Amino acid sequence: MCELLGMSANVPTDICFSFTGLMQRGGGTGPHRDGWGIAFYEGRGLRAFHDPNPSIDSPIARLIADYPIKSKVVISHIRQANVGQVCLENTHPFSRELWGRTWCYAHNGQLDPGLFEWPLGTYQPVGTTDSEYAFCWLLGEIRQHFPTPPEDSQQLVEFIHSRAERLRQLGVFNMLLSDASSLYCYCSSKLAWITRRSPFGQAHLSDCELAVDFAAVTTPNDIVTVIATEPLTCNESWHKLAPGEMVVFFEGEVQAHRLSPASS
Amino acid sequence: MCELLGMSANVPTDICFSFTGLMQRGGGTGPHRDGWGIAFYEGRGLRAFHDPNPSIDSPIARLIADYPIKSKVVISHIRQANVGQVCLENTHPFSRELWGRTWCYAHNGQLDPGLFEWPLGTYQPVGTTDSEYAFCWLLGEIRQHFPTPPEDSQQLVEFIHSRAERLRQLGVFNMLLSDASSLYCYCSSKLAWITRRSPFGQAHLSDCELAVDFAAVTTPNDIVTVIATEPLTCNESWHKLAPGEMVVFFEGEVQAHRLSPASS
Repeated sequence: MCELLGMSANVPTDICFSFTGLMQRGGGTGPHRDGWGIAFYEGRGLRAFHDPNPSIDSPIARLIADYPIKSKVVISHIRQANVGQVCLENTHPFSRELWGRTWCYAHNGQLDPGLFEWPLGTYQPVGTTDSEYAFCWLLGEIRQHFPTPPEDSQQLVEFIHSRAERLRQLGVFNMLLSDASSLYCYCSSKLAWITRRSPFGQAHLSDCELAVDFAAVTTPNDIVTVIATEPLTCNESWHKLAPGEMVVFFEGEVQAHRLSPASS
Repeated sequence: MCELLGMSANVPTDICFSFTGLMQRGGGTGPHRDGWGIAFYEGRGLRAFHDPNPSIDSPIARLIADYPIKSKVVISHIRQANVGQVCLENTHPFSRELWGRTWCYAHNGQLDPGLFEWPLGTYQPVGTTDSEYAFCWLLGEIRQHFPTPPEDSQQLVEFIHSRAERLRQLGVFNMLLSDASSLYCYCSSKLAWITRRSPFGQAHLSDCELAVDFAAVTTPNDIVTVIATEPLTCNESWHKLAPGEMVVFFEGEVQAHRLSPASS
């Protein structure tokens, strides 16, 4: 299994604090020694860092933890390999272009090998993971159904949710997906989020001796949502998603919310 | 105008020395202060770093100059903006997936705005540069002409050359392009390359007081080709390409060579 970390904010925000917590799980407090990656949107651009080495040993991970890259949407992943060997092309997050936007995706879980029989459209995997195959399938489905972006964004939310539900039938499919604006978070087994806004308090990382006083690093108008497979802090109350639940964030706020028909 | 740097090698090789030279032109000895990017293939995976800030001031550029990432194919670019504002999505190299391979591309030059009338296929630009538009057009043409990879790689070389020739009619189109294996280098106005192999000598960077003794950092079987818009060293003899000439490198060696019908 792997760990996911996402962020949606209304102002460019650095994720150093949460990333430091996640990195500890990359061979420190967790077993996820098979690479890590992080992607930051900056406007429509995507800045991605991948490393097939454990995050705890990685000079690139240390650079990111120390150097505050500010972004409104971030997707990060650390990996414990199950399907696909440990190599760069199998390292999340994955990205592809659709409608002139760079879509970025990371997956936690494992899917039945039957997945590899599902026909693909425009997008072909570069590596050999079930995760990237699922991404190519999902994005191909979106592209086929919506050759151009739908005017009603709710249609897109419904569609992505329906396809995520299909993937969940093949196993565990916790997913973070973004088009540079919205952050689609689908829960199959575990995903939790917290929105921080004024008045900001102090947070303590569960995985290492680090606290941050958000009041000191934010302005009163900042709204910052962090989402992760497991809560990253020990003194805050995180919302846990139910299996089949999808929450979409935009500028740090909940934009849409879908439950599985099975669980609603 | 911008500067391009590419590498093709038969063993994973670090490009620290050449990159250090190129970086000096990013606001040091050159006027290219509008961002830079570098992409390293590692197997089929692509590790890309982009920064809209001048390379000479960039902590990420310093990391890359100091931290030897080894690769068989590298494409790098530093930018002096002409078309498109300075932002991450306008920063080279650009990449897209075709045939389950990540294609990477960087361009030096400027093309007539008539380019933006050319119809695109599968690939849409994310940013606003002529360079990315040309890449989307080129890759869309390849995809349309070859829905699957041609068995005869010479056909692909001919086709890419013919489309690069069309782009050259719109202005200056020096290009580096790779599919993770081959490095396609097309010259419109300036591009020069050098192949280093045993017996290795010493090289002196033109742009700063740095020399490297390649014999100390290579093995006798290494073959490393470096290609750049301007020769990077002052004590070696570089091959200059003619306008309309394309050279394709594979594992550091010339794999194919095409001249413009106009100049041949």
